[in-house]
Amino acid sequence: MVPRPISGVRLITLTSDFGLHDPYVGIMKSRIVQRAPGIPIIDLTHEITPFAPEEAGYWLYCCCGQFPAGTVHVAVVDPGVGSERAIVVLQAAGQLFIAPDNGLLGLVATGDVEARAYQVGESALLRLGLAPVSATFHGRDVMAPLAAELASERLRADQVGPQQELQPGRLQRAVAYGDGSVHGVIAVIDRYGNALTTIPASSLGGFRRPQVWLAGRQLPLVRTYAEAGAGECVALINSSSMLELAAREASAAQALNARAGQAVYVDETLRS
Amino acid sequence: MVPRPISGVRLITLTSDFGLHDPYVGIMKSRIVQRAPGIPIIDLTHEITPFAPEEAGYWLYCCCGQFPAGTVHVAVVDPGVGSERAIVVLQAAGQLFIAPDNGLLGLVATGDVEARAYQVGESALLRLGLAPVSATFHGRDVMAPLAAELASERLRADQVGPQQELQPGRLQRAVAYGDGSVHGVIAVIDRYGNALTTIPASSLGGFRRPQVWLAGRQLPLVRTYAEAGAGECVALINSSSMLELAAREASAAQALNARAGQAVYVDETLRS
Amino acid sequence: MVPRPISGVRLITLTSDFGLHDPYVGIMKSRIVQRAPGIPIIDLTHEITPFAPEEAGYWLYCCCGQFPAGTVHVAVVDPGVGSERAIVVLQAAGQLFIAPDNGLLGLVATGDVEARAYQVGESALLRLGLAPVSATFHGRDVMAPLAAELASERLRADQVGPQQELQPGRLQRAVAYGDGSVHGVIAVIDRYGNALTTIPASSLGGFRRPQVWLAGRQLPLVRTYAEAGAGECVALINSSSMLELAAREASAAQALNARAGQAVYVDETLRS
Repeated sequence: MVPRPISGVRLITLTSDFGLHDPYVGIMKSRIVQRAPGIPIIDLTHEITPFAPEEAGYWLYCCCGQFPAGTVHVAVVDPGVGSERAIVVLQAAGQLFIAPDNGLLGLVATGDVEARAYQVGESALLRLGLAPVSATFHGRDVMAPLAAELASERLRADQVGPQQELQPGRLQRAVAYGDGSVHGVIAVIDRYGNALTTIPASSLGGFRRPQVWLAGRQLPLVRTYAEAGAGECVALINSSSMLELAAREASAAQALNARAGQAVYVDETLRS
Repeated sequence: MVPRPISGVRLITLTSDFGLHDPYVGIMKSRIVQRAPGIPIIDLTHEITPFAPEEAGYWLYCCCGQFPAGTVHVAVVDPGVGSERAIVVLQAAGQLFIAPDNGLLGLVATGDVEARAYQVGESALLRLGLAPVSATFHGRDVMAPLAAELASERLRADQVGPQQELQPGRLQRAVAYGDGSVHGVIAVIDRYGNALTTIPASSLGGFRRPQVWLAGRQLPLVRTYAEAGAGECVALINSSSMLELAAREASAAQALNARAGQAVYVDETLRS
Repeated sequence: MVPRPISGVRLITLTSDFGLHDPYVGIMKSRIVQRAPGIPIIDLTHEITPFAPEEAGYWLYCCCGQFPAGTVHVAVVDPGVGSERAIVVLQAAGQLFIAPDNGLLGLVATGDVEARAYQVGESALLRLGLAPVSATFHGRDVMAPLAAELASERLRADQVGPQQELQPGRLQRAVAYGDGSVHGVIAVIDRYGNALTTIPASSLGGFRRPQVWLAGRQLPLVRTYAEAGAGECVALINSSSMLELAAREASAAQALNARAGQAVYVDETLRS
């Protein structure tokens, strides 16, 4: 069971690679509002790199903890629309996630051992009056109305279709090596040029004096942006409790020539 | 009469060339919310090419079918603000459209033979407490409050002023030639580089084996993006039931050197 | 006392340099909605130049008059997050403004002689369950929930902490010289390339035939964009009642090589 939110507020969030240049996001909202009037819709971002589902999944992984229990997240990064890829509903961390099964939700699912995914089936679509479906815009025709039904509690995740294994995504959780070091990658570069990694704060608990490495360069671990010198590149635990590479009032990505996919690791400072 | 929405939900949508860099959209929303609290406002896009009203009109033409009966659409692309151009309310397809009379609504009006346009008059503005009006921001001072009044059903379209003919826009509906071919143009290039045309799916019903032409190049007509080879340029009927030129996970506009205004036509494949 | 809005509608607005590329704005909205469900949230802009608080302050100064009494504005441009800079609540012009005390609110405060600012203190945060606070995202952890509490009238501005003087910002109100001329600067360049200045319409009341100067060039003062010739650079009083440099359907900033910070002044035409 997805728990009821304590505040009584249920939310729907939207994430996509639609951009804001075209009306596709507004069209999805029209569908949601008609089936779930009164439920607030919050945009996470529509500026996911086109056709990069793992980027959307990383943001959901980082920020779903900021949303109340029962929130329904819709993520549409769907280069395979019209092909045989499934649409899935993932129940994890007390929330629901609707997305194409193209690896987008892989990282989110790893965050909860009790996570369960369900493949959206033809019979559920027929029952909800959603079939037949367009060949090119499942965000509008399937995912938006499903989100409305789930958020309104007229539908449970386990009623959309059979349980199934999710496609793993290109982004994995950070890994601890035998020598105690922790290895991850840069997942996204944000608007400020901060490089956000897959290494969670929790995996750094065992270090006495952790040092952070990117491409052979060691970065000092600080507590806030303000502790860095002007333009200095540092590592810190960000507001999502993830390891982030940053520079004070400057782009760390530019200064470090960092890009998504690049390896980052943390080990113990041995010499004092 | 504009029909009542079945769901009971009335919506207001906003389209403009304001961009999101400045607070102009937020200012319009403030005006709407004060007069129509509780009516959801949905952004279609604010990234219309500055001073290109026909682009806004094309999007409204394509996507108004996705909105419930009674929706009020406001479109502000208004290079002539402060000149003698009128503001009009168009009643068409069971919905209302508020815009400057600069060609923006020409294409939308052609979609409904019973469409009626009314010129917003001084006396309606006085009655609503909207006069005098600023010289530079009629979106805020006239169109936003009018939308609130119309959506709240305190005002009917035929009460804003006298009926009038709309200025035709630069974009026309696609035309069928005597030889059976159908001729239109590229109306907009979307965020993915898809080229959206003025040719509706309905105009292709008479073809047995339609072929699509752009600048002397023939494009295969497929059903979904996934049917195209990687980077291959194809034509398809998109989710708005319009003919679209697309490439799989690539920009068709770039690959085809396509731009808004360019001619596209469809004819019958004669040889097998 | 902040007056109650006549319409009964209370609003929260958001302004930041977060951009829309990342989910930071959506995360703030989640926090607000959970504490103040049903209160509309309006985005002013999230495209403030990174680390330029005075730009956010200028927009608030220009457009707060368009919002109802009691509106709560949150502005997060916060390069000093994690340092010792305070967070303040400013009560001015019948509205509330929450921002870091880094000069952002200087210009807004000058608009109301009865303006009062209060420094958000540890004890208020503890009482609201907001302590301890993250080191990097006070917009989410302090400003968003404070806005919800203030807009819901569960908290008054004078209850957040002691009254204090605001840091003055880099932007000052326009100044009248002894010779009658009025001197200001360009504050922001908007999406159309209009250059918005710090000179309010009210300061031009004493001129019989005002002339506007930028970098030794005189610009004609007109009433609307439509009065300018195609591409001609002019000055006008804009919809926020501020002096603006504009060009008809073109970028004045480009034509004039204008940039934020540049001096603009107005004097009397002496010869006829």
